[in-house]
Formats: sequence, structure tokens, C-alpha cells
Amino acid sequence: MRVKHKKWAEPLLEAHPEKMVMDPETVKGHWEDRFEKNQPIQLEVGMGKGQFIIGMAKKYPDINFIGLEIEKTVAAIALKKALPEELPNLQFICADGAELTDFFEDHQIDRLFLNFSDPWPKKRHTKRRLTYHTFLAGYEQVLKKQGTIELKTDNMGFFEFSLLSMNNYGMKYDGVWLDLHNSDENEQNVETEYEHKFSEKGQPIYKLKAHFDN
Amino acid sequence: MRVKHKKWAEPLLEAHPEKMVMDPETVKGHWEDRFEKNQPIQLEVGMGKGQFIIGMAKKYPDINFIGLEIEKTVAAIALKKALPEELPNLQFICADGAELTDFFEDHQIDRLFLNFSDPWPKKRHTKRRLTYHTFLAGYEQVLKKQGTIELKTDNMGFFEFSLLSMNNYGMKYDGVWLDLHNSDENEQNVETEYEHKFSEKGQPIYKLKAHFDN
Repeated sequence: MRVKHKKWAEPLLEAHPEKMVMDPETVKGHWEDRFEKNQPIQLEVGMGKGQFIIGMAKKYPDINFIGLEIEKTVAAIALKKALPEELPNLQFICADGAELTDFFEDHQIDRLFLNFSDPWPKKRHTKRRLTYHTFLAGYEQVLKKQGTIELKTDNMGFFEFSLLSMNNYGMKYDGVWLDLHNSDENEQNVETEYEHKFSEKGQPIYKLKAHFDN
Repeated sequence: MRVKHKKWAEPLLEAHPEKMVMDPETVKGHWEDRFEKNQPIQLEVGMGKGQFIIGMAKKYPDINFIGLEIEKTVAAIALKKALPEELPNLQFICADGAELTDFFEDHQIDRLFLNFSDPWPKKRHTKRRLTYHTFLAGYEQVLKKQGTIELKTDNMGFFEFSLLSMNNYGMKYDGVWLDLHNSDENEQNVETEYEHKFSEKGQPIYKLKAHFDN
């Protein structure tokens, strides 16, 4: 997600080291120290403005959540939104999702969320898509055995690519929904900002749940 | 496909043993005798009224095509449509697709088509869906190594089920299209009767190409 640069963003990020991790390599192996309770960790790669991961942290206090975002201004918007909530089970990272294996030990994450990721529609940008096989290899390494990936998007081309890429990588699907908001799966759905906007326009939301076959 | 029973159907089927096979078990191992040329075989399971397989046989004279349909009246409608075309590379079977391995030798078929198959939406009918794993096992046996399945449907629930079932079986996807008629893949598309009707209404047509990973 790209937004207009905001002057207050970087100072806010730096003012909250208790919530926002700017150098996640240094936390590798010590994530439990940053949470009140030692409980399963779920990670969103590309959290955007944070509505989804904050909603999840409020809904599921028995799970620790981490939201990762590469863009500083966007991460700062999420931080601003999260601070008043005082959620002891929520942490943020501002860094590049391509380097996940430097931030987490192997098989440390229970579930990984990809919500409305940048579709990078041009062919020459294929490698930047968060379901390109190089990213999948990173997810496989940090996810627990049988840990799941849950992906949501409104972008048909990105969903077609992801179905193909995750299948070709050898992942096993647990569920596919081509119109999430009109399915049973929607009952437990936590919406993102994008999702709310797009589904209001009547566009279908696609969802895929899958795990590595290891 | 179910249609109203027609009195002329059975007599027509029986009057054309040169084109319509009613006892395919007896042809197993001798399919080449029923075609003018010895060339690759492609099979449609559930051909309905035959528009697709007749169109394919006209478009690709260097391939032998077989259309299979379980319902006699429907098979007779396809036969009636095909006879004036006098296509030496087209044969029909009126029999149950669940018994494919009794009709063909192992690894004899180059490509298998499933077009607008009955979605059997009720949970208790899951086993009747043509992408249920028992059917996939039959396709795997009769298809050549690396032979492909091409599936088209307008039914979202059936497509979701098929994506899941074929992935879980271990098949590898070659392509997924969530709106075939607005994609590059449509350039070489041969339409079925259903497809024409549904796409005229603006409904998306789904397509999946996949092969067994053997």
C-alpha cells in the first residue's frame, strides 16, 4: 500500500519501541519477551493500515498477533490506530516481508495472513507478488508444520496467480471461496479497510486457505 | 444433463453403430480401428448435446475425439447433430463415465475435457461430482503421463470444489481463469451450448487446466 508521505510518521514509529519493531533481526529468538503471555503467534504480511490485525487481536486475546508493513507512513497509521487499544497481544514490524527468515526462527508462526496484497499486475513485476515462490519458501520456513496461510483479495489476476503458484509449489488447499461475503466462511470473517470498500461496491472477495505439505 | 425422453432417441442410437458405441468395454484395446487415422485421442466426459466435441473435431482434424454421455436422449441429440458433418475423427460413447477404465487401456488418452458438468450441489451427492477423487483416479489411469484435464463451468460451487479436490489429489495446475471470456485464453476457446447461454447473461465462465504429477 502506498500513501502520501506524512511528516509525523517516522517520529511516531521511533517514539513507540514497545509496540513497533524497526530492527526485527535483533528480536529473532526473543519474540516471547515482547508479549504479555506466551501463546501462539499469527502474522500478517502487508498489514496496511492495520484494521484486520487490530480486529483479530481484539477478537482473539489468546493468540499473539504481529502485523508487518514495509511502508513507514502506512505502518505509522496502523500504530496510531492501535495505541489507544492497548492490546498486550499485538506487535508491529516495519520491514521487508522478503526477509521473514531473518526475523523469525524456523517453524515459529502458527498462521500467516496475506490480505489484499499489492497485485503487481505487470509481468515484469511477477517476482514482487507475495505469493511468488521465493516468498512461499520463506513462509514455509517460518510456519509451523501444518501451519496455514490465509489469503484474501479482490484482485482476480492476483488470485489466479496465487492459486497456480501455491498449487505448483506443492501446497495443499484447505478451502477456496470465490465469493467470500456470500459464503458460510464469512461468519467468522474480520474485514480489512480495502475489503469493506470493495465489498460495498458489490465486487466479490476471494479467499484461499492452504498449508505446506510437510 | 437431463432432457425430456424422446421416442426416436434409442432407435437412432442403435441405427448408427459406426458412430455410437453402446458397449465400450468391447472396444477397449481397439479404438484405433474406429478412426480413419491413428492419432492422439482426446475425450470429453459428459458431452451433453455435443456442440463442443463436434466443434473440436472440425477444428482439429489431426486429433481423434470421443464424446461420452450417460443419458441416452442427450447422446442421441449429439449424434443427430454430428451425422451430417461426417467427421472421421469423431466417435461417441453412451455409457457411465465412472467406468472409464473398462473402456480404455491405461494411459491411452491425451487430454480429457469436463465441460459444465452437473454440479450436484447437495452435500450428500458429493460423490457424483465428476471431480470427486474416485473419478480423478479413473482419469489418472486412462490419461497419458503428463496428459491434461481441461475443466470449464459457470457453477461457482462446483469450481471451488474442483479446485480443492484436484489440488488435494496432488494434481498440478497449468492455468486457472476466473473469467475465461475476458482473458487471453478465450482466443482458442470452443464454446458449449451452456457456455454460450450463460456468458450471454454476463455470468463469468471458470476454467482450470491441470495434470497429474506422475
